[in-house]
Parts: sequence; C-alpha cells; structure tokens
Amino acid sequence: MNRAESPLRASCPPALIDALRARFGERFTTSPAIREHHGKDESAFPIAPPDAVVFPQSTDEAVEIVKRCAAHNTNIIPYGVGTSLEGHVLAIHGGICMDMSRMNSILAVNVDDLDCTVQAGVTRKQLNQHLQHTGLFFPIDPGADATLAGMAATRASGTNAVRYGTMRENVLGLTVVMADGRIIKTGGRSRKSAAGYDLTRLFVGSEGTLGLITEVTLRLYPQPEAVSAATCTFPSVDAAVCTVIQTIQLGVPIARCELLDALTIKAVNNHSKLGLREAPMLFCEFHGTAASVAEQAKTVQTIAKEQGGMDFEWATKQEERTRLWQARHDAYPACLRLKPGGRAMSTDVCVPISRLAECIADTNKDVQASPLQMALFGHVGDGNFHLAIMIDPNNPQDLEESERINHRVVARALAMGGTCTGEHGIGFGKLDFLDAEHGDAVMVMQAIKQSLDPQNLFNRGKVVRYAG
Amino acid sequence: MNRAESPLRASCPPALIDALRARFGERFTTSPAIREHHGKDESAFPIAPPDAVVFPQSTDEAVEIVKRCAAHNTNIIPYGVGTSLEGHVLAIHGGICMDMSRMNSILAVNVDDLDCTVQAGVTRKQLNQHLQHTGLFFPIDPGADATLAGMAATRASGTNAVRYGTMRENVLGLTVVMADGRIIKTGGRSRKSAAGYDLTRLFVGSEGTLGLITEVTLRLYPQPEAVSAATCTFPSVDAAVCTVIQTIQLGVPIARCELLDALTIKAVNNHSKLGLREAPMLFCEFHGTAASVAEQAKTVQTIAKEQGGMDFEWATKQEERTRLWQARHDAYPACLRLKPGGRAMSTDVCVPISRLAECIADTNKDVQASPLQMALFGHVGDGNFHLAIMIDPNNPQDLEESERINHRVVARALAMGGTCTGEHGIGFGKLDFLDAEHGDAVMVMQAIKQSLDPQNLFNRGKVVRYAG
Repeated sequence: MNRAESPLRASCPPALIDALRARFGERFTTSPAIREHHGKDESAFPIAPPDAVVFPQSTDEAVEIVKRCAAHNTNIIPYGVGTSLEGHVLAIHGGICMDMSRMNSILAVNVDDLDCTVQAGVTRKQLNQHLQHTGLFFPIDPGADATLAGMAATRASGTNAVRYGTMRENVLGLTVVMADGRIIKTGGRSRKSAAGYDLTRLFVGSEGTLGLITEVTLRLYPQPEAVSAATCTFPSVDAAVCTVIQTIQLGVPIARCELLDALTIKAVNNHSKLGLREAPMLFCEFHGTAASVAEQAKTVQTIAKEQGGMDFEWATKQEERTRLWQARHDAYPACLRLKPGGRAMSTDVCVPISRLAECIADTNKDVQASPLQMALFGHVGDGNFHLAIMIDPNNPQDLEESERINHRVVARALAMGGTCTGEHGIGFGKLDFLDAEHGDAVMVMQAIKQSLDPQNLFNRGKVVRYAG
Repeated sequence: MNRAESPLRASCPPALIDALRARFGERFTTSPAIREHHGKDESAFPIAPPDAVVFPQSTDEAVEIVKRCAAHNTNIIPYGVGTSLEGHVLAIHGGICMDMSRMNSILAVNVDDLDCTVQAGVTRKQLNQHLQHTGLFFPIDPGADATLAGMAATRASGTNAVRYGTMRENVLGLTVVMADGRIIKTGGRSRKSAAGYDLTRLFVGSEGTLGLITEVTLRLYPQPEAVSAATCTFPSVDAAVCTVIQTIQLGVPIARCELLDALTIKAVNNHSKLGLREAPMLFCEFHGTAASVAEQAKTVQTIAKEQGGMDFEWATKQEERTRLWQARHDAYPACLRLKPGGRAMSTDVCVPISRLAECIADTNKDVQASPLQMALFGHVGDGNFHLAIMIDPNNPQDLEESERINHRVVARALAMGGTCTGEHGIGFGKLDFLDAEHGDAVMVMQAIKQSLDPQNLFNRGKVVRYAG
C-alpha cells in the first residue's frame, strides 16, 4: 500500500494549520522539504509526507496539539528520528507529524536506583554519553541512534537483548498524552509492581497508536567490571547457529551473540574497512567480573571449536570493541551499499531457538533460488534474524520478489511457533502478518484501540485496522 | 468491605444453576462446605462464598461456562488454590466460582527452547517436580504452592525475582477465554516479539477481570551448575538493608536476597524447628558456575562484614538449602502461629532501593508505636517488603489499627516513588490505593475493562471499579 492508494487520505483542515502556525510560530512548518523528510523511514515504502510538522517542547504543549487535532479529527503521527522499518511514521492518511526532537532533556538519573527519566526525544547514544561517568549504562541498542520514546513505542531491542531484555523489560514507566488530552503516568520507579493493569507494557510496542509518549523512565545497569568481545568464523551458518543454541541452553549469560553471513561480512568489510574473512561469523560479547568473563569465553570457545569454529579474535580494548560493534550496527547501511542507489527490504522473524538452524537453512534455500541479493544477519541468541533484501524500489519485479521472500520467511517462522517481527514492529507493512500470527487476538487489540482512541487520532492505519 | 455490606450482591439465577448442574453433573456443586472453602483466601477478609462452584476440564468447557454465565449476566470468579492476599477470589458480588484445579496437565516441555506450556491449574511445585530430570526449573516462587495461572493473574513474584524477574518477565503467552466466549492466544514461543499490543502483559496482573486464563506458556531456566545459600545476622535491619543495596548497585547477579527481622526469625524458629539467632538476618542464594558462585559469595560477604554482618552460615547441600528456603516460605504461616486463632494482615509495598532503608526505618517506628505485633520480612533485593500484622479478625480495634498501619506504609511508599503492591495485587482490598498510586491512569484501566468485558462478567469488583 502506498499513500496514493489510500482511500482514507484526507487533507488537514486549513483552520487547524492556521491555528497551529499562530500558536507555535517557527516550531510549526508546512515546508515541503521538512514534510518530505518526515514522510519517510528506513523502509523501502514510498514517501508519504504529513501535512505539517510541529515541534512541541513540553508535555503540556503536546496536550495542546492533541486537543487541537482532536477538535479537527486530524491524524497525529509521533516522530522520533525516522529510523523505523515498517512505515511507522509515514503519513499514509495525512495529518500532523509531532516531531519530539526538541523534547531532549535528561530529566533525572538516579544512580543509586539504577534508573533514569528522559524526555521523548532523547536518543540512546545521548543517554549513554550522559551516563558515561556514572558507572551505569543503558543496554538496548537498535542499530540506529533512535529516540528512547521511539524505541519504547516499537518495543525495540538489538544486540544486548539476549542478556538485558528488550524495551519491554527495561521501561519502568511512561508519561503519555491520551486522545482526550489527559496526561497519565503508567508506572513509578519501583522495580516491580502488581498494582493494576500493566499500562506500561501496553504502550511499549503500541507504535504511537494509543497515545503519545512524552517521557520515559528506564532501567539502567552497572557498567560491567570486565568486557570481552570475540569474533569467530564458522564453516557454515548452521555450525554458527548450533554454537549459539548450545550456549543459550547451557545458561551462559552471554551479553551479545550476533550472526553475520558471508555476504554481510563482505558488506561490513567494505563499509567499515575491516579485513574479516568472508565466511559465516559470530560476534560475541561477555560481561561480568574478570573471572566470570574469562570463564564464559572459555565455555563458548569450547563449544565453537566442536562446531568447527576457527580464527578466534579477541577484542578486550574499548576502541577495538567499539569498532567491531559499530561495524555490526552498520550492517544494514553496509548492505545498502552493495546495490548503489538501491534500498533494502528487511525481514525480521524470530523463532524458538530449537528451530533456528532449520529456519535459517530453509531461508538460505530461498536466498539461493532468488535473483535478488540478500544478506543474513541477526540476534541469533534470541532466535531473531534479518534478511536485508537489496532492491531497486522503482522496479516492480524487485518489489514483488522481495515481498514473496518476506511472505515465505514469515510463514515459515509462524509455522515454527515464531513471530513475524522480533523487533521492527507492524507499522502498516505487516498488518496482514499480524492477522496470520494472532488470529482473533487482533480483535482484542482493535477493541483496545477503539476504547482508548475512539476518533482514531493516533497514527492511523498502523498496527490495527480501525477506521475510527 | 465485606459481602454483607455489598450493595451489588445479586443472587445467581436458578435457571443458570439448573443448567450448569445438568451439564456438569458431579463437577458442579452448591454444597455449603465447598462454597465456603472457595469464598476465602489467605487474607483476613470475611468469607464471601460464591453461589456455586464448577470444575471445567478443558478450555472448551470453560467457554461453555462463560457463555452460560454471560447469558444470565452472572459474575465468574476464576479460582486456583485460594492463596491470594487481597480478597481476589472472594465472591463479594456472588456468582459462579470456576475452580481450575482439574485442568492440571503439563501440555508440553520444550527442553531445547527452555519453555513449557501448562494448563491453568498446574501448581509451581508440580511443574518443578515434573522438570526435575530435565535440567531445567521454573524460578518464580510465591510462598504458597499457587497455580501458575493464578500466579500469572496476580503478577506474582517471590524470592527469585531479583535475578529472574516476576511473572511479567516469564510468561511467553496465554490462552484466554474472553467475555464473548472467544478463545485467544496472546503469544507464541519466540523469546521476543514486536507484533502488536502486548496482550500477554495485559492479562498478566489483570486478576481474572479481563478474561479467563486456561493455559500458560512459561520461560524455563537451566538448573545452575552450582548453588550456594547463606544466612548472615546483622546488628540492625538498617545494616542488613545497606548490604543489599550495595550488592544490587554493584551488579552482583544474586539469585535471592531476603530480609527477616528478629520477630520473623523467632516465628520461623518456632515453626520450622530452626535455631537461628533472633536478630535481623539476610537469607541469600547464589546461582552460576562454581567459580562465579564463589566469587559472588565473597563479594557479598565482604560488603556484609563492613556493615557488621556476622555468623555467616553456608548451605551448599540441597537438603540444607531446601530446609532454609522452606522456612523462609513458611514465614507467613509461622507468623500466624505467634497469635493462635488470629489472622495476619500483610502489607506489600515496594520502593526504589535507594529509599528502602529509610522506608523500613520509618515503618519500624510505626511498628514500635503500635499495640499490635508485626513481623517484617521481604524481597529486599527488589525493594519489596511485607509487614505481617497479627490481628484478631473479630476485634474491630485490631482491624482498624492494622488498616491504619497499612495506610501509613502505603502512603510512605507512594511518596517515595514506590507502589502499594509489589506482588500481592489489588483484589478489592487495595482499590483506593490504586487510585492514589495511578491517578487518571485508573480511568484508562476502566476503559480497557469496559471494552473487553462490557457486562462486567469477570471477577466483579476487583482491580477496577466498573459497574458493567
């Protein structure tokens, strides 16, 4: 679906435009360049610009915008930095984009409690920079330097999730503006609570469709005493995956455990000027005391060797590790460079780990039989992997073939008890898959959407099909 | 509030009673003894028996019961083993109690994926018994041998939560019968998913008010290679709490970390025939490899000694540990025996750990100034502690005084950014506190209740005030 096809596309009422401009001055714009910038994400979907972009500076200003949009029955699209992958921020039904980037204050860091509260627009790197001298860090790291509210909204994860969990496990509470303009706080700062329905978890992963997140309270972790990273090459993807499965099953508290196939390594070598051997590879990291890290590393090395792993390279220095993980995080843009001028369509399935080797092997058969080039990499410790399918977005055959592959991969994952998306979310790109995965539970999601946002103000056409 | 006071108490229609009896035969009863048994929990609230009790054996039978109750607009109360602490299962508005104890099959254990699926009525001990020879275990352990669906419904935790999380982190998916009789599955078996609203977390902690849980899929963990438990005596509660705070802040992955005050130790000594010194004490446990356990234990011992900790006693043998932790789990019944014929009213606040020492110190002033006897113990690694207030439930002064103390403790915790309940839930005992803690967010909870259970069929009068 693209914007031109959308039957519900409605223009924003001029009266609303005028009112917002009068109220927000230079923090409101209908500039085509800025609208275009806010009408795209990292997906290959065609650009769908909003009618205008507004930059609130406080929760109270956000309330004001929500109330004005409600009065004009106009769609509101929350926007972080635009790095989502399923069209989450595309204005497929028009409307006002609320860019949260000017709400970028770190409101509190409670070192003794290992938590912090930030405004919606603070990015993960900004937070970690701020925390550098506290001895704490925030582990969740999608490849992009996304905003923390955006990460909460998409239930993001990344390379550390195998040890530290996803945004689901690491958001303690949220401040949310509801469709009626009410401000709610979904949680306090205690580590656990059994007080009422878990609204925090309901908003985490709701992709801006149930309310607007303006503040996020997060768990932090002590920087580990020792950190060690390693790369290891394998004779096959299967051997690498088997190493991961045994590691998880043994209960080794590995902090990161990433698979990159030979094509991804090639892309990463080109992009990040590394000289890694072009073969399936694991990037691992261990956190703990010096003794514990050494012990974990030894265990994984033993398992890897039994699977034919070789060329173990250790990175114990901070700079080496930073370079290695930056290269891993850049795998997606690195793959994009394999097809100059092209785009990448990314799959995102996650399966029970016992099925992971089979799922990847079957997927690789699809890869080999396809005319398109695809790189495979992912967070295999969680059972989550991606195919970055290189396409020319103007070539209908490429689009059709990438969709065909995506359908096959998702159907395979669902048949194995997995999910159509481990961390990217539904946006509007995966609405059909959500139905396939959740069946009647989707009606429950629709009922919740209807009850909390009856006008369908928030991010229309995403996550749930609800006409408002 | 007790049943007699309830203005909404309605009798169950005779036609429904007749229909359920005809359909379920000996699995349906109106016997006064069985109704009475199902009309109480571990709280001090007066008994409120349901009109009848039915024992479904399958999800389909549960659907049938829900549809019949819906047709007669009759309240349904899900029942596990009746060990909740805030009146969750009390039939304060009458209705049909659905006792899930005959749905007690373990449906699947996936050793390679570290997960399992059980029917609602399986208890945590039954599951761990079943898992004994698989090398896996399920860590969440409220004191009682509760059912796993009951634990999911109340978002239970226990002594292992500091390391393994609560039911929130350990339920992968649920099968739920909705108010319209529809069966939904809220999640698959993959470790993470970003597919749609997090219905699993919405039902975890909903206390049977949004739907009826009939099956639960849970995360399991490898039994650690080494386990070591220790007890340590402190000169004051404050010194013990400071030891815990430093342990958490250092990132020691301690598996259990429990505080028992001198009165609790006295009760436990009497009840479990132990000879522990009657002073504030920490019960700790460490899980990991042999080397890691030794290292963790050494770190905590060093911290404890700086706080004046003494009499370190180690329990490395399974029998010793079992005896120790059984004694800890029996703290609540042990305290009950301090006042023969009495009951205990349990508080359950949880605060950010930096405020824990202050919160406990201020609470101890309340304890000293009160005529009632109270024991203090809890999961201090999470910032969660209980007062077991011994009362004569027939003495209005005792009830009033225990309520006064509870109010003071909750108000103190909320002022510190904490919660009125860390793990016991709201039931009907904490409705006012939920308002105080969540403010306008309670209206969002009510909207969700209304949208998913418009007739107010499920567990009326619990968690949210909604008349249906």
